[in-house]
Amino acid sequence: MSELKSKFIEVYSILKSELLNDPAFEFTDVSRQWVDRMLDYNVPGGKLNRGLSVIDSYKLLKEGKELTEEEIFLTSALGWCIEWLQAYFLVLDDIMDNSVTRRGQPCWFRVRKVGLIAVNDGIMLRNHIPRILKKHFRGKAYYVDLLDLFNEVEFQTASGQMIDLITTIEGEKDLSKYSLPLHRRIVQYKTAYYSFYLPVACALLMAGENLDNHIDVKNILIEMGTYFQVQDDYLDCFGHPDVIGKVGTDIEDFKCSWLVVKALELATEEQKKLLHENYGKADEASVNNVKELYKVLDLEGVFADYESKSYQKLISSIEAHPSNAVQAVLKSFLAKIYKRQK
Amino acid sequence: MSELKSKFIEVYSILKSELLNDPAFEFTDVSRQWVDRMLDYNVPGGKLNRGLSVIDSYKLLKEGKELTEEEIFLTSALGWCIEWLQAYFLVLDDIMDNSVTRRGQPCWFRVRKVGLIAVNDGIMLRNHIPRILKKHFRGKAYYVDLLDLFNEVEFQTASGQMIDLITTIEGEKDLSKYSLPLHRRIVQYKTAYYSFYLPVACALLMAGENLDNHIDVKNILIEMGTYFQVQDDYLDCFGHPDVIGKVGTDIEDFKCSWLVVKALELATEEQKKLLHENYGKADEASVNNVKELYKVLDLEGVFADYESKSYQKLISSIEAHPSNAVQAVLKSFLAKIYKRQK
Repeated sequence: MSELKSKFIEVYSILKSELLNDPAFEFTDVSRQWVDRMLDYNVPGGKLNRGLSVIDSYKLLKEGKELTEEEIFLTSALGWCIEWLQAYFLVLDDIMDNSVTRRGQPCWFRVRKVGLIAVNDGIMLRNHIPRILKKHFRGKAYYVDLLDLFNEVEFQTASGQMIDLITTIEGEKDLSKYSLPLHRRIVQYKTAYYSFYLPVACALLMAGENLDNHIDVKNILIEMGTYFQVQDDYLDCFGHPDVIGKVGTDIEDFKCSWLVVKALELATEEQKKLLHENYGKADEASVNNVKELYKVLDLEGVFADYESKSYQKLISSIEAHPSNAVQAVLKSFLAKIYKRQK
Repeated sequence: MSELKSKFIEVYSILKSELLNDPAFEFTDVSRQWVDRMLDYNVPGGKLNRGLSVIDSYKLLKEGKELTEEEIFLTSALGWCIEWLQAYFLVLDDIMDNSVTRRGQPCWFRVRKVGLIAVNDGIMLRNHIPRILKKHFRGKAYYVDLLDLFNEVEFQTASGQMIDLITTIEGEKDLSKYSLPLHRRIVQYKTAYYSFYLPVACALLMAGENLDNHIDVKNILIEMGTYFQVQDDYLDCFGHPDVIGKVGTDIEDFKCSWLVVKALELATEEQKKLLHENYGKADEASVNNVKELYKVLDLEGVFADYESKSYQKLISSIEAHPSNAVQAVLKSFLAKIYKRQK
């Protein structure tokens, strides 16, 4: 493990201990233990990419200058705020999707004695973010911008989640609602803002930048986040289960995936009919019919083409940016995801 | 309807229309209609006491000086933020409690095609608050204090909800966990902060006050909120259903009510045994046994005594406050709830 990563993980324990002793609430012993266990179960078990990228980005913005202990702590704290935000969304998403497992263990609401208390636990996770921000950033010049940023990104994520939920209402499986612009809108709002823009925006604020001057950076990161989610959709069907760590079920789940949207765009009337009849069904034959059609339409080739065009476009946008440090941040993000297999 | 109340209600339409055209999100037609309907269903249908009390309090702080149109709009907007906060908690509470009706209509999650999308709708309601605050208060000197205030009060409310939920976990009906200190803690955090302190704190901030100088006001309002909830618990059993507008079910629901906590305090060993055997059961005989015990223990008299002592204590705390305007605000709150029958 890199030194920064182990420092990052140390910061989790500090933040947790502060939250468990927050003077704004008189904990009972039982409630303190509850939050302790709930945090350990839901916050630190992911890949931590989003959180770590705040530190990485800040370091690049500082052009390799050694970070002070305070800078490491503060960038880590902001990184953890993003991990907390993610945990909050995942706990609630799993309830809404009636999911079974998450990060290799049962979803939190499926744990004994938790059940729908998980709704309030999601809320608690969300409420921890401003507690962390207040404790460590209240005196900083960029404190109010940090609050505005987290509020805006949370709003956008919840809004993206909303259009995803209402276009896939149970019992209304209607493929004709799915289109590339809708897919793009869901992906941008539901994933790209908090996964790609938020970490860099945190680093920019800490570096003293005004986010209003970085609309171009935002746009590039949203593009990158969109490309990342298209990869995700692609790997769900064409990735190797042993490599991606799960068996994809987007076809069975009637997901508004980039693949089905592309297929609808390229299909003949007859092929569309096949899609309408087979998409969103759980039996193996239907799933195989859809996969067969994806092959006939050469979605692998279509994706490879999309991937290289996206890459080219992103690289030229990045290289048009006036700051070398910012270019380095963006290129580092892109390098992490280009042609990823998992 | 008073002139202020009708102005207050007008502001709801303005805020809703701004939210439905928020440039931070590209609505689809369907999602805009969804939010429109969700807001109308959940936000304005209550008694609006919390929201209106921001305007009332601000007026008293201004010592009767006519409010400008801007002041009326801004106090109303803050009042609506509290109503939005309340709607957010109610939508999610109803899911967790598996409730049937709310404000005379089916709970939102029970509406056709809504279901667990209501979890995300609760999140949307919560996210609207910082959108409203940013749009109308971003330039004010007290903007950051307003954000901190709403964040802290939401955290306290969710924390109170948490101890309520984990002490009444299904399948662990254990009366011995209930006590007056626990009851007090739940009530303070779950209800008093957002219902009593928050409206006055909003008015104080708008009047240019620093909340750190008003810890005494906070303490009085938390006391008042506790008294209010004790009344609520009392009326659930002893109030007239036609007057309170519902049939109380705290006994059946195994609620940590002030009545059961007082009963446990006053009961003999034998009476405690009766309580343990009958509390939290749905059949009429068990409920009647509990009610009978409440009568034997003269909880009506105990409550009347509590009520007059609380009133006396609150009045003397209020009259010890140096500012007449603040006294007027606090007395106006107290007058609205003292000896209420509903």
